[in-house]
Amino acid sequence: MQLFWGNKINDSVLIVQGEDVGHISKSLRKKIGDEVNLIDGSGKVFHCVITKITRNQVDAVVMSEELMEKNWKNSLSLAVSPTKNLDRIEWLVEKIVEIGIDCIYFIQCERSQKVNIRLDRINRIVQSAMKQSNNVYKPLIIQKSFTGLIQDFNANELNGFIAHCGDGDKQPLCREIIKLKDTLILIGPEGDFTPDEVTIALKSGFLPISLGSSRLRTETAGLYAVSVFRGLNLIQ
Amino acid sequence: MQLFWGNKINDSVLIVQGEDVGHISKSLRKKIGDEVNLIDGSGKVFHCVITKITRNQVDAVVMSEELMEKNWKNSLSLAVSPTKNLDRIEWLVEKIVEIGIDCIYFIQCERSQKVNIRLDRINRIVQSAMKQSNNVYKPLIIQKSFTGLIQDFNANELNGFIAHCGDGDKQPLCREIIKLKDTLILIGPEGDFTPDEVTIALKSGFLPISLGSSRLRTETAGLYAVSVFRGLNLIQ
Repeated sequence: MQLFWGNKINDSVLIVQGEDVGHISKSLRKKIGDEVNLIDGSGKVFHCVITKITRNQVDAVVMSEELMEKNWKNSLSLAVSPTKNLDRIEWLVEKIVEIGIDCIYFIQCERSQKVNIRLDRINRIVQSAMKQSNNVYKPLIIQKSFTGLIQDFNANELNGFIAHCGDGDKQPLCREIIKLKDTLILIGPEGDFTPDEVTIALKSGFLPISLGSSRLRTETAGLYAVSVFRGLNLIQ
Repeated sequence: MQLFWGNKINDSVLIVQGEDVGHISKSLRKKIGDEVNLIDGSGKVFHCVITKITRNQVDAVVMSEELMEKNWKNSLSLAVSPTKNLDRIEWLVEKIVEIGIDCIYFIQCERSQKVNIRLDRINRIVQSAMKQSNNVYKPLIIQKSFTGLIQDFNANELNGFIAHCGDGDKQPLCREIIKLKDTLILIGPEGDFTPDEVTIALKSGFLPISLGSSRLRTETAGLYAVSVFRGLNLIQ
């Protein structure tokens, strides 16, 4: 089923703007009266009929809607300190949206590189990856400080894990996540979390994990952690 | 430990060529008599002393050598049909070398896009990712036809898995690989393996697996499979 992005104006009308206008009207040459399937990130697919096409917008009326099952069990949030090379972070976002992610935090840590995250670009990448992979649940994208994230963390609601390269006992990711609970995983900057940051996280209920003996780049670590979590939480 | 690539001339001499010459002589400003750690992909680290530096080459004599433990258990080979957009395949190679891979097959399947793999570029990416992640065991890189790979497959030596999107029973990757055996995973082209290709693989002892309900791009599927396998096979 080919999907395009729409914004709900009211219960019966969605409008399409941006690059999907061209996909619908030029690539697929759809006309007024043709059917089109739209998503808005809520998990619903709206089976629509086109009522109007202009150069910049397609209007469609909803004939029926379908709440899709998520492609995965258990909510997963990934907090990552963005790298200066934004290609790498954008690549990570694309991949973890394909695999399945519920929330992405871009966190500022003590050793984080100074980066301007282009949230509009991130949003386009998210939407494109969702269409590619037939995932219709849009993840939240949130920028936050490390300390703010830790302060808001509730260990009763979520399993929290912090992946770091410093000293101290750590469990490999897979043994810990077998608990199959909603989870938040923290991936640090290329220079790692500071010992103080690790201490604060552990005090707030995060468990320290290892992602193996290889030294992974930030985006590789994020992708690896999401893959392992999903691999152990599949719906069949 | 900072590592650079060298070629063994004989038991006591390695030479460095290519970009690592500049890293050693300019970035680190090493001189004759200075120590340098070299790898050749065999798993050994050669603790050397520099004997000669020219614009294009650094010569070094071996003082001692150390066979490093692999960062992972169980050999993993990934066979993937390369995508026309070579960036994507190069990203995949970089990431799976960081995570840990023993052999990468670029396979030609019936629905494969026509691609010229630049093995010299792939080799540079592999070497760079190995240095980045402190993995000193260089994976084999092999181009092969799908049918050739299947013909050479020995189900007594390896667990083989084929990930496809067609009909038929499939197990999720994680349950099957708990057997912790040397493994070969096949990832098909964007258009998927043909039913005939799947049949041939099953007849030769490959097991059909699912990588979840999301539709993953080729390179995402490859990364996901390697991550899940490694996540369940960690050395601590």
